[in-house]
Amino acid sequence: MSIYWNERIRNVEPYVPGEQPKEEGLIKLNTNENPYPPSPRALEAMRAALSGDMRLYPDPDAERLRGAVAAYYGVDPAEVFVGNGSDEVLALAFLAFFDRDKPVRFPDVTYSFYPVYANMFGVPYQLVELDSEFRLAADSFDGGQGGIVLANPNAPTGICVGLEQIDAWLAKHRDAVFVLDEAYVDFGGETAVPLVRKHPHLLVVQTLSKSRSLAGLRVGFAIGHRDLIEGLNRAKHSFNSYTLDRVALAGAEAALNDRDYFEQTRSRVIATRERTAAELRARGFRLTDSKANFLFASHPEYEADKLFRQLREKRVLVRYFAKPKIDGYLRISVGTDDQMDAFLAALDDIMRR
Amino acid sequence: MSIYWNERIRNVEPYVPGEQPKEEGLIKLNTNENPYPPSPRALEAMRAALSGDMRLYPDPDAERLRGAVAAYYGVDPAEVFVGNGSDEVLALAFLAFFDRDKPVRFPDVTYSFYPVYANMFGVPYQLVELDSEFRLAADSFDGGQGGIVLANPNAPTGICVGLEQIDAWLAKHRDAVFVLDEAYVDFGGETAVPLVRKHPHLLVVQTLSKSRSLAGLRVGFAIGHRDLIEGLNRAKHSFNSYTLDRVALAGAEAALNDRDYFEQTRSRVIATRERTAAELRARGFRLTDSKANFLFASHPEYEADKLFRQLREKRVLVRYFAKPKIDGYLRISVGTDDQMDAFLAALDDIMRR
Repeated sequence: MSIYWNERIRNVEPYVPGEQPKEEGLIKLNTNENPYPPSPRALEAMRAALSGDMRLYPDPDAERLRGAVAAYYGVDPAEVFVGNGSDEVLALAFLAFFDRDKPVRFPDVTYSFYPVYANMFGVPYQLVELDSEFRLAADSFDGGQGGIVLANPNAPTGICVGLEQIDAWLAKHRDAVFVLDEAYVDFGGETAVPLVRKHPHLLVVQTLSKSRSLAGLRVGFAIGHRDLIEGLNRAKHSFNSYTLDRVALAGAEAALNDRDYFEQTRSRVIATRERTAAELRARGFRLTDSKANFLFASHPEYEADKLFRQLREKRVLVRYFAKPKIDGYLRISVGTDDQMDAFLAALDDIMRR
Repeated sequence: MSIYWNERIRNVEPYVPGEQPKEEGLIKLNTNENPYPPSPRALEAMRAALSGDMRLYPDPDAERLRGAVAAYYGVDPAEVFVGNGSDEVLALAFLAFFDRDKPVRFPDVTYSFYPVYANMFGVPYQLVELDSEFRLAADSFDGGQGGIVLANPNAPTGICVGLEQIDAWLAKHRDAVFVLDEAYVDFGGETAVPLVRKHPHLLVVQTLSKSRSLAGLRVGFAIGHRDLIEGLNRAKHSFNSYTLDRVALAGAEAALNDRDYFEQTRSRVIATRERTAAELRARGFRLTDSKANFLFASHPEYEADKLFRQLREKRVLVRYFAKPKIDGYLRISVGTDDQMDAFLAALDDIMRR
């Protein structure tokens, strides 16, 4: 605490990122990174960007990258915004679209950065209660609001809401922006991008950190009506005009263009997830129906926090949240088959005691 | 304009970055980029970072890079913050330290992003009038305030205030944060970093975009009391926890460690600046005493906006600001000797007509 902090900074409870361990040799299944390296074409494009031209500013409008996103999704580049990871895109959305006089709604169990953004920018929020199966009801967002933020698939549950339900909510709640955070959609969800032309208040947010194996590059994007994109651009150019460096612009563009590699690696992650889920069920775990690159599992006879610590001792790092409703669960990122075998072996060791 | 924009976004007047021309073959002297490539060691370190590990998140605390800044300046890593360009660092400082009830002060002629940040985050501001020579008076910041923001050297004038004066202002105005933006300090100014231990309200902000030839990498940093750094960290972790990608972290660290290359290139820029200033004076231009990597010049017989357009026709791009007090000036970034010769030749062509 300092006398020089303003009220906003004194009161905010900052986000706590998952542990990025400095030690070597850990099996790291705690921050939903992709176990496969980025596309070789993306690495090649990044290498090519590393010339003397690094002395020059990057394109502040990221035209080529926005073009690649637009081509991938069949939208117009004016309907695409790119930012420094989807976290920054989400922050700018809170900054541009939500007000201090009307509460934004999001589930009580979801990505823990949403309430942080809200507190940071003075936006009130209401938590929508998920049922005991972590599901939303059709009337979940009824009642006036200043916006909706929904992770689909949700984190840390991995549960997906169908597009029909999303469409129905969008039709019902037209008075404020609906931010759909699709960080994990490529692992089995269905993107709502096709609904963007129908609903001018829908902003779909995605990232290259997970399904494109580029967590280390910091690139995310949003797709929505051009007026929403213009709003995000106004926020960006009032904060930091050059958020993506030359390497990130080049690598992200190439990654989006390498569809074969993307399809291969995401299929492998999905296959490993399903195999690991079956193995966990065979060991008595209860799992949500995760469509993300992680599993969300609890065991009726083993305490999650204890399992977390015991796995850590065996050099397997998963994620445990000491929070109401989810403190009985572990979130396990999907690694390679070998990594998941090692995780299961460590678990067997622990459960055999 | 959209019904979905909040009041903040409707009312803000975003920053307009300098033109980043798509066409080839221009002599680009408009955005103060360094004419020399980045350190070969920095390029090598960035290449080495381009491995399969790009699938992993970067270190959110940037420990190694903060260590390099700390070592360079002889401070503690806890006194160092790093961000996505100094623009982001400045934005987070506005977000963390300035209030809606007390005005921040900065000169009426300075970096045009300051009023944008203020408007964006609801911070009132007062402009301190520079005299006809673009100089501040000793009593410039007298009267209560919620903070001071000062670019030193100033932009776009290049004029530097001495450390004694900075020290005196700091001693006089202890009740709020004093942000000293030293983006251009390496080209002839004197850094105020040694004053940081004496003044817990001093935040010195620098960038690797100019003197380290890394505008394309987006890295800036701040040095100040550890409580101020903690405040910036709280703001960052309430906005975007991973602002620097793995390539940027590696490249920036190596650039800071390559002191020889840094000394060589900045000396060359300074020498070219002085030579070009003399050439311009010989052609009747009036110049400020710029300690930055640009010149700020007016001519009693030629209109600046017209010169700007005529130079553009001759494929030389400089910067012109259609703003009170400075609309008679051109800001000319210092390029290589060859580029400056081409600029002077173009000018001679225009002035000979």
